[in-house]
Amino acid sequence: MVGLNEVWRARTDASLQRALDAVAGGEPRLHAAMRHAVLLGGKRMRPLLVHATAHAFGAAPGAADAAAAAIELVHAYSLVHDDLPAMDDDALRRGQPTVHVAFDEATAILAGDALQTLAFSLLAEAPLDAEIRLAMVAALAHASGANGMCGGQALDLAATGEDVSIDIAALERLHAMKTGALLRAAVTLGALAAGVDADTRARLDSFAAALGLAFQIRDDLLDIEGDSATLGKTAGKDVAQDKATFPALIGLEASRDRLQALAARMDEALAPFGDAVAPLAALGRRAIERDH
Amino acid sequence: MVGLNEVWRARTDASLQRALDAVAGGEPRLHAAMRHAVLLGGKRMRPLLVHATAHAFGAAPGAADAAAAAIELVHAYSLVHDDLPAMDDDALRRGQPTVHVAFDEATAILAGDALQTLAFSLLAEAPLDAEIRLAMVAALAHASGANGMCGGQALDLAATGEDVSIDIAALERLHAMKTGALLRAAVTLGALAAGVDADTRARLDSFAAALGLAFQIRDDLLDIEGDSATLGKTAGKDVAQDKATFPALIGLEASRDRLQALAARMDEALAPFGDAVAPLAALGRRAIERDH
Repeated sequence: MVGLNEVWRARTDASLQRALDAVAGGEPRLHAAMRHAVLLGGKRMRPLLVHATAHAFGAAPGAADAAAAAIELVHAYSLVHDDLPAMDDDALRRGQPTVHVAFDEATAILAGDALQTLAFSLLAEAPLDAEIRLAMVAALAHASGANGMCGGQALDLAATGEDVSIDIAALERLHAMKTGALLRAAVTLGALAAGVDADTRARLDSFAAALGLAFQIRDDLLDIEGDSATLGKTAGKDVAQDKATFPALIGLEASRDRLQALAARMDEALAPFGDAVAPLAALGRRAIERDH
Repeated sequence: MVGLNEVWRARTDASLQRALDAVAGGEPRLHAAMRHAVLLGGKRMRPLLVHATAHAFGAAPGAADAAAAAIELVHAYSLVHDDLPAMDDDALRRGQPTVHVAFDEATAILAGDALQTLAFSLLAEAPLDAEIRLAMVAALAHASGANGMCGGQALDLAATGEDVSIDIAALERLHAMKTGALLRAAVTLGALAAGVDADTRARLDSFAAALGLAFQIRDDLLDIEGDSATLGKTAGKDVAQDKATFPALIGLEASRDRLQALAARMDEALAPFGDAVAPLAALGRRAIERDH
């Protein structure tokens, strides 16, 4: 399994490198900031989900390359903007200074903007059937826009601070939009690359929804249990910023139980598919067990 | 001519309204900020260019609706981000408080992000042939990304301040990317909606390139000659911020001469096309003669 993940990670990095090279020649500082945001590490969780899904249902890796890179570009742009002083105000990301620290705020805003643009450009020009490319553009846009990632980040900002209390349903909705939508989109893009049927799509989406929520609960736990060096970002920020988190709302023990229930849901969703989905199932387990 | 522009402006506003309504239901403050950015005025220059081009070459107005709205969404997102304190730091836009003033910086960043996403979503789902939609996504992405609008804004920031001097060639390149690329894309999208041949595309692009440069020179002149009330934004900011402008580099008189030369280039580019391009030609003249 490790072998495939390494292959897919290398393909993703090569695709990202090519995509960035293709827009060199503009303003050098902007381009350097875009490279900083994308090429200096990251788990590549979303690209791995794209590739693992495409692989499980028989697509050639080349069919998933553009989608894997595009979704990572959207993820990277969102991190650049989320780290800004006006947002989460974070100085450390993936063990590196954040883009506005390494460059400046204006460059970070523009680099994020241009990375988003590049994502849609990649999908539009991927070597795939026109209808598949369009479905990918639509899926990525829905997952990352006002009713997806951006909306979730806005809900998160609204839910941060001493005067606000939200319940567990509101917190789940927030995470479903903020991080869940893009993780689900990763699986959807992989499914589109492979051309799976509607029943398979529904099972994969159930897996991905469980994975998305599990990923966020684990993130909340790591903020409490992890250390900054392993995480590559500042630990303990959620508590310091009075953020609504699963541990804060339902406690550590119930959060850990919830993770186990989500693991079972993921297994159940993938049960009919046999050995080919093993790399995808392993990514689901990793979301729950990861230490960074 | 006025009649057609009013029809196209109304179609654009209706398309924008529908597009925004379709992403209601997320975070209310984010959605209100997106509406503020898009629906409270604006000349709709880019949508008018899309429609006028599509009309001139026989497309039904419905074929241009998505492109007209999408390019205005990209324009609106760029204004929201450009107005941020870390960028041009402007408090007034279209006679209204800018988004970060009316809401807050974090909401302005996210609203801009989500407006860009919505633009690509609209194009991907437009009622047009798949290949046309994909060409539109690619054209809009190229015009607005690192080698287009975002790159031009980065060049502009790099060229602002006492220590920097740029020459006229660098200034033209800056504007060709910052404002010219999106204005050219407007004409390209209209041409795609109408399915024009390659020769016509080339002529239209020559027209649009001249228009883009003229638009910016006129903008520079208005900053000096205009007043804030008519402009709907703060006059005199370029001088105050020591910005590289055409009047600053070549003087007022030469800037006005340049505008007239560009007007002649626009007329020449459209000369073969007869009466059908009259509304498009009128938009070109307006770019040169506008007082806001």
